[in-house]
Amino acid sequence: MSKSRSKIGQKKTVAPVGPMFKRIALIGIGLIGSSISHAARRAGLAGEIVGAAKTEATRATAIKLGLIAKGYADAREAVRGADLVILCVPVGACGKIAAEIGPHLEPGTILTDVGSVKGAIVRDVGPHVPAGVHFIPGHPIAGTEHSGPEAGFAELYDNRWCILTPLPGADAVHVTRLRTFWEKLGSNVEIMDADHHDLVLGITSHVPHLIAFNIVNTAAHLERVTDSEVIKFSAGGFRDFTRIAASDPTMWRDVFLNNREAVLEMLGRFTEDLIHLQRAIRYGDGDTLFDLFTEARSIRRGIIKAGQDTAAPDFGRPHGAQTEKK
Amino acid sequence: MSKSRSKIGQKKTVAPVGPMFKRIALIGIGLIGSSISHAARRAGLAGEIVGAAKTEATRATAIKLGLIAKGYADAREAVRGADLVILCVPVGACGKIAAEIGPHLEPGTILTDVGSVKGAIVRDVGPHVPAGVHFIPGHPIAGTEHSGPEAGFAELYDNRWCILTPLPGADAVHVTRLRTFWEKLGSNVEIMDADHHDLVLGITSHVPHLIAFNIVNTAAHLERVTDSEVIKFSAGGFRDFTRIAASDPTMWRDVFLNNREAVLEMLGRFTEDLIHLQRAIRYGDGDTLFDLFTEARSIRRGIIKAGQDTAAPDFGRPHGAQTEKK
Repeated sequence: MSKSRSKIGQKKTVAPVGPMFKRIALIGIGLIGSSISHAARRAGLAGEIVGAAKTEATRATAIKLGLIAKGYADAREAVRGADLVILCVPVGACGKIAAEIGPHLEPGTILTDVGSVKGAIVRDVGPHVPAGVHFIPGHPIAGTEHSGPEAGFAELYDNRWCILTPLPGADAVHVTRLRTFWEKLGSNVEIMDADHHDLVLGITSHVPHLIAFNIVNTAAHLERVTDSEVIKFSAGGFRDFTRIAASDPTMWRDVFLNNREAVLEMLGRFTEDLIHLQRAIRYGDGDTLFDLFTEARSIRRGIIKAGQDTAAPDFGRPHGAQTEKK
Repeated sequence: MSKSRSKIGQKKTVAPVGPMFKRIALIGIGLIGSSISHAARRAGLAGEIVGAAKTEATRATAIKLGLIAKGYADAREAVRGADLVILCVPVGACGKIAAEIGPHLEPGTILTDVGSVKGAIVRDVGPHVPAGVHFIPGHPIAGTEHSGPEAGFAELYDNRWCILTPLPGADAVHVTRLRTFWEKLGSNVEIMDADHHDLVLGITSHVPHLIAFNIVNTAAHLERVTDSEVIKFSAGGFRDFTRIAASDPTMWRDVFLNNREAVLEMLGRFTEDLIHLQRAIRYGDGDTLFDLFTEARSIRRGIIKAGQDTAAPDFGRPHGAQTEKK
């Protein structure tokens, strides 16, 4: 796999032929959209970046932070003259926006998105894409628990994966162009079909989030343990779950409604496996527990070796009184 | 609650009356024991720290790192002359060690432990404690996913909670003495009864660990998603679970075998709540999902406000290519 990454903090000089895209339109300027702007400017990939956001406050913040040159309330205006349009809104909002902007997209434009579900994007956006526009769904596997235009930063995609799910018969030249764009944002790129993406993300992202949301709510509703106790003693492991449970509720509602089949399948397996462990606890079967716990360690080692997490204890969280109180 | 904390990295000068304990014996020198040594030396709490460890390699490492002045293979020798004895071994090993060292403990000595379960410690250790020895079970809510004497550091207990679960009729003077010891190690101290501790930790620590071990194993056994894909795309949320799933398998086996009732109760609630969410996904009930996800965010805010986690995105994990590959 070819990789082309700019150095952190080092602006690439624009090649004599000009930047990759003359005008990038970000539809939605939250964590993901704003980070694309940071990283695209770091690498000099765009002649101009413009954005659409429904609320005036978001547009004003995005302009103030230099994320976009112009902000539009109406996505149709934002896509005029753009040769790369990126939908950076929750999955459930993409179909409606595609219907609006479809007639305004220029031939030769690449239309992509960043949604966590790909089958539903193909289903909802696909029908609105006019001939001559290259629709290539995408999903950067990167993020933090923070939301909004101020949450973005240039390094978000560095050494993370971005999955592209081109439709059968997609134009290879434009797929390669979008791939190169993500590589220049800092990512590694993988190509797979939309259904497989939804299965992979079901287990690596969607089910973990659901479980995190769930245990936080279970803890909040106990009668014999107070919320204050849960918070105080969360360093025993619980707090690790709360980070992803702090993620944007709208985005995650849309993910679960739009990746139903894969999530239900993975959840079924998870619950089956959990009941197996529960049974081992009930009957005092220490060997089964020990073996399963030992096996789980090796996946962690793989993740660190693959550069997808840090080996520092506690994710490198600050320790010591001087840093903890914020 | 009074707090007396030494500054990080600043050795306290020993008060004229001498250190709090003349000889501290650590039985077991892993992450927890070694961190106690670091923090106790930082605060000048011990005339001497000695340790017992079964393996020669652990004793040699502990001496080399300055964690202990003397190392013993036999715990009975380690406790001679000690006025504070701390069991720092997995919960399942404490009863046997207590039976061995009991007859060798000197009157006036405080005997404590660091186990993640307290009811079982009272049950297993209690009967071996001779008259005149002050047995006060304890549990610092702190740790990392790393194990062994080299994993310890002085700041591990800073601003974390330590729970003491003295038995009915415990000598208040000695409970206060142990409380002060933990405060000087950097902790906040809470006192509760053993059964309540086991319930609180069931939800804040034991069930989260079981769920983390479980989802890692579920992911590892899928037929349609490879381990390599799980590892590559783990940044979507999964990797957060793998940290605690990398914790010591022996310690955790013992926790589940010894806190069975509380864990089974909490697990039952967790599964019930999860099936409620699963049903909302199946029937497309977005409002239920949205409301539950929104509620989960507030607990995260409480944890950050209480100083039990960092507000930095991704736990403050390093971002950018220069820091990720190790």
